[in-house]
Parts: sequence; C-alpha cells; structure tokens
Amino acid sequence: MTTQQLCEQIQIKKSFLCVGLDVDLNKIPQHLLELEDPIFEFNKAIIDATHDLTVAYKPNIAFFEAYGLKGWTSLQKTIEYINEKYPEIYTIADAKRGDIGNTSSMYAKAFFEDLNFDSVTVAPYMGKDSVEPFLAFENKHTIMLALTSNEGAFDFQTLEVNGKELYKQVLETSKTWKNSENLMYVVGATKAEYFTEVRKIVPDSFLLVPGVGAQGGSLSEVCKYGMNDNVGLLINSSRAILYASNGTDFADAARAEALKMQQEMEEVLKA
Amino acid sequence: MTTQQLCEQIQIKKSFLCVGLDVDLNKIPQHLLELEDPIFEFNKAIIDATHDLTVAYKPNIAFFEAYGLKGWTSLQKTIEYINEKYPEIYTIADAKRGDIGNTSSMYAKAFFEDLNFDSVTVAPYMGKDSVEPFLAFENKHTIMLALTSNEGAFDFQTLEVNGKELYKQVLETSKTWKNSENLMYVVGATKAEYFTEVRKIVPDSFLLVPGVGAQGGSLSEVCKYGMNDNVGLLINSSRAILYASNGTDFADAARAEALKMQQEMEEVLKA
Repeated sequence: MTTQQLCEQIQIKKSFLCVGLDVDLNKIPQHLLELEDPIFEFNKAIIDATHDLTVAYKPNIAFFEAYGLKGWTSLQKTIEYINEKYPEIYTIADAKRGDIGNTSSMYAKAFFEDLNFDSVTVAPYMGKDSVEPFLAFENKHTIMLALTSNEGAFDFQTLEVNGKELYKQVLETSKTWKNSENLMYVVGATKAEYFTEVRKIVPDSFLLVPGVGAQGGSLSEVCKYGMNDNVGLLINSSRAILYASNGTDFADAARAEALKMQQEMEEVLKA
Repeated sequence: MTTQQLCEQIQIKKSFLCVGLDVDLNKIPQHLLELEDPIFEFNKAIIDATHDLTVAYKPNIAFFEAYGLKGWTSLQKTIEYINEKYPEIYTIADAKRGDIGNTSSMYAKAFFEDLNFDSVTVAPYMGKDSVEPFLAFENKHTIMLALTSNEGAFDFQTLEVNGKELYKQVLETSKTWKNSENLMYVVGATKAEYFTEVRKIVPDSFLLVPGVGAQGGSLSEVCKYGMNDNVGLLINSSRAILYASNGTDFADAARAEALKMQQEMEEVLKA
C-alpha cells in the first residue's frame, strides 16, 4: 500500500487507529481454547468486529512465535484473512528486526514477500546497512524505532550524542539512507512532549504511536504535538481493545472500545 | 547449558568455534533441492561433519523465517536434531530480538522453551526492560549486541555519549541489570583493536564474535586482544564453512574448513 492510499483510508474512515494483535492464550476467552486454532479465531472475530473503525492491524510477531509452528500458522492465516477480506487495511508486522545486510534481506523477504505485510518494524542499533535492505521494497514501509514507550527507552535513546539525544540522531541519520521516503518511525505516546522535537526533524513522516491506553499515553496530547497535514499518525491500541471483555461478548466489547477511540479521532480530525 | 559446561567443552574439544547456520537455498548444492526439506538436510550434513570440531551452532533465524512455515519446520527439526544427537553442543538462536517487557517474554518463551535453545541474541536499543525478561531464564544466556561487525556499526554504536562510545555505555549499563551474569555480548572481529576496550568493561563475559572469514576479521588478532582466562570467546564462521564447496562433497569441504579453524584455535590455546 502506498502512503497516499493510507492517507485516503484515514479520511474515508475518519480514523487513524491501529489495532495491535498481541494474542495471549492466557487472556482470551476460555471458550475459544476448544477450537483448533484459538489465536486465529480470536483475531478473526476482532478483525470482523473492528475493520470499519481501524485503518491498520499490527500483529505482534512474538506472540505467534511463542507458540512455534502452530503460532506461525496462525500468523499466516491472520495476515491472509486481512489481505483477502479487507484489502483496504494497512498491515504492520511488529517484529523489531535488524541484522547485517544479507540477513536483513531475508527478514524483509519473510515479511514483505512470504507473508505480504505492508510494513515491518525494525531496530536501528546496527545502522544503515541493517535497514536499507528493507527500504528497497517498493510500496512497502519500514517503521524504525526512534523513541519507544517503555521505561528502558531512557537507558540509551535519550542519552546525548553530538549535542542531541540519541533518538534525534537516529531520526536525522536515517533521512540520509537510500529510499528513506519509505521510512516511518515508532514514537511512544507516553512522552507526548517529545513529539514537538520529533516533528522538527521528520515533519512529513508517519509515526506509529504505541503507549496509548494500557501504557498511559493520552490521545489528545499526541495529536496536539504530533499531527501533521496528512495526519501522519497511526495510534496503536492493543490490550485495551483485545481484552475489553473475556466473555463470549469479547468481539462486541472490542468494537465498543475501538468505536470510542475512532470517535475521539473523528473529533480531532474535525478540529 | 551452564557457562561452566561450555568452558569444559572448549577444553575437551580444543575449540571455541561456532558454526553459523545461514542456509540460503540459492547457495546450497543443487542436488539437495530435490529432497523434501533441503534446509534441514543441509544442516544435518554440516552438523554431522563438524560436530567434533565446534562447540556451538548458531542458526540464523532470518534464513528460516524467509521460507515461512516450511522454514520454521526446518528450524525446529535442526534444533531438535542437535539437542538429541549432540547434547554437548551449545546452541544460539541468532534472532536479534528485543521489545517491551511482555513481548520480550514471549520471544524468550519462543527460543528458550518452545525451541529449547541455550541462548538467543538480542538488541539493546529498548533498554533494561526489553532484555531482563530473557535474563530471567536459568541456565540460559542472552547475547546482547555491543559492537557489530557491519559497516553500519559506525552509525550509532561508536558515537560518544557521556564521554564514551555508545557500545561501552551499553556494556556498562547492562552490568547493572537483574541476572546480568546471564549476559554474553556480540563484538565483531572486524575491529580487533576494540577488544582491549571491551575487556576493560566486561573482563569475564563470553563474547560471540562474528566477522572472521567472509567479513575479513583475523582470528589471531581477536584472540590476542579478546581472550580471557576462561577463553571467553565464541568465534563464529558461517559462509566460509557452509559454502566451502557447492558440490556433493560440501560436507567434507565444510569439515576441512572447520578443521583448519579448530587447529588454529588449538595452537592459540596451547600458547
């Protein structure tokens, strides 16, 4: 999917919500565990209940890999289901990959070709040649960690290098890489005041924003400091939507949560 | 496997060689492609031909994920084969993972429990709470990127923070984390002179060293600056061994390459 198509979907749906699919078998409704593929069945129900309110789904790859071959099968079925039934939806493989060039190429092949995701998240620590193999894919986005939403973000990301914080250096350096127009960035919602700084360096880029909801970030604050003319934000919510109920009404409860967020977004877009 | 057991294996085998399993279907002998699981068959032949010369195998997870479900099956068969037939071998999942705490826990479960690897490589960018879930596993090691062997290592890892290079800060900070005795570090062989600096900060830790061979690093230089009383090094070689021949003699050719490295290591251990 192109950036342009993503922007159109945001305008059509009046939403820039991304639903994270972090499916933990210990948290999903117990009646699903009797089915052959509980993770896929759970995802399918969530997707069917929320697809008109969200522009993106973000399967968290760890939550599939933890279940081995069965998990990888669930992942494959989930992405195929979205791509076939809701091709207008933008898909993000939340994988945080990154390795030397020939290895990053294999990860890119895994997520862009084999699974056919629109985008994948990557880590910056290994630098240019660990990210450029992802950027080489046309009409695919590479979403690089800049400033994350967890406590450990302050261990290294905010240390000062060259007179600025490391995450700013990461943003600046990445703009010099080949096909950098295919980059988006992860910026955590738990630090809304940082969005002003981020926007000085990457005014036009899309930002994937975790940390609203369960992790404590505020949607209105993020929009205030982070939005650009194209909206330029994908706000992720995972647990607040997925586990709104753990009864047989879980899909309806998820829809109600997603609707609340979409309506809040519609208000922001009007203003 | 405990660190002590790994040290014993190094003494018994007079080797601190790790063979990286980066299996590219475009590079393996063509006659294997007719078999049902060429990746596993290739790995099995390489492992049978080199197991007495090496103390560790390091499957590169990207090269399995790129082939989807089939690849994940090959990975599972490969690790099971090593664990059953050669339980004295140390195993490393080269995965470069790292995410917020609950997600890192799932990756740890994937590699330590589901696949039963002895260790996994992780990236440091997200800090403490992205690594500690891995460190919580007893008798498992977490191998964190410090200074990598690729060109992009100089983009961020060697920038100065707090008056020292970032990779040094990463080493120092990580020593304060819970269960940090379970840490090892990736330090690339292409920069042998850096080992002196690394050893000032982590004198006792094991270092996993990529970059000897195809990437240009020198074994003797790395040993000169990086070895400690426990040896403290695992020197990885992937392509130079795996693709020593692409004919039907590939396993014999791989053994010959591994033997050359093991003999060089034996000389170093004598001195």
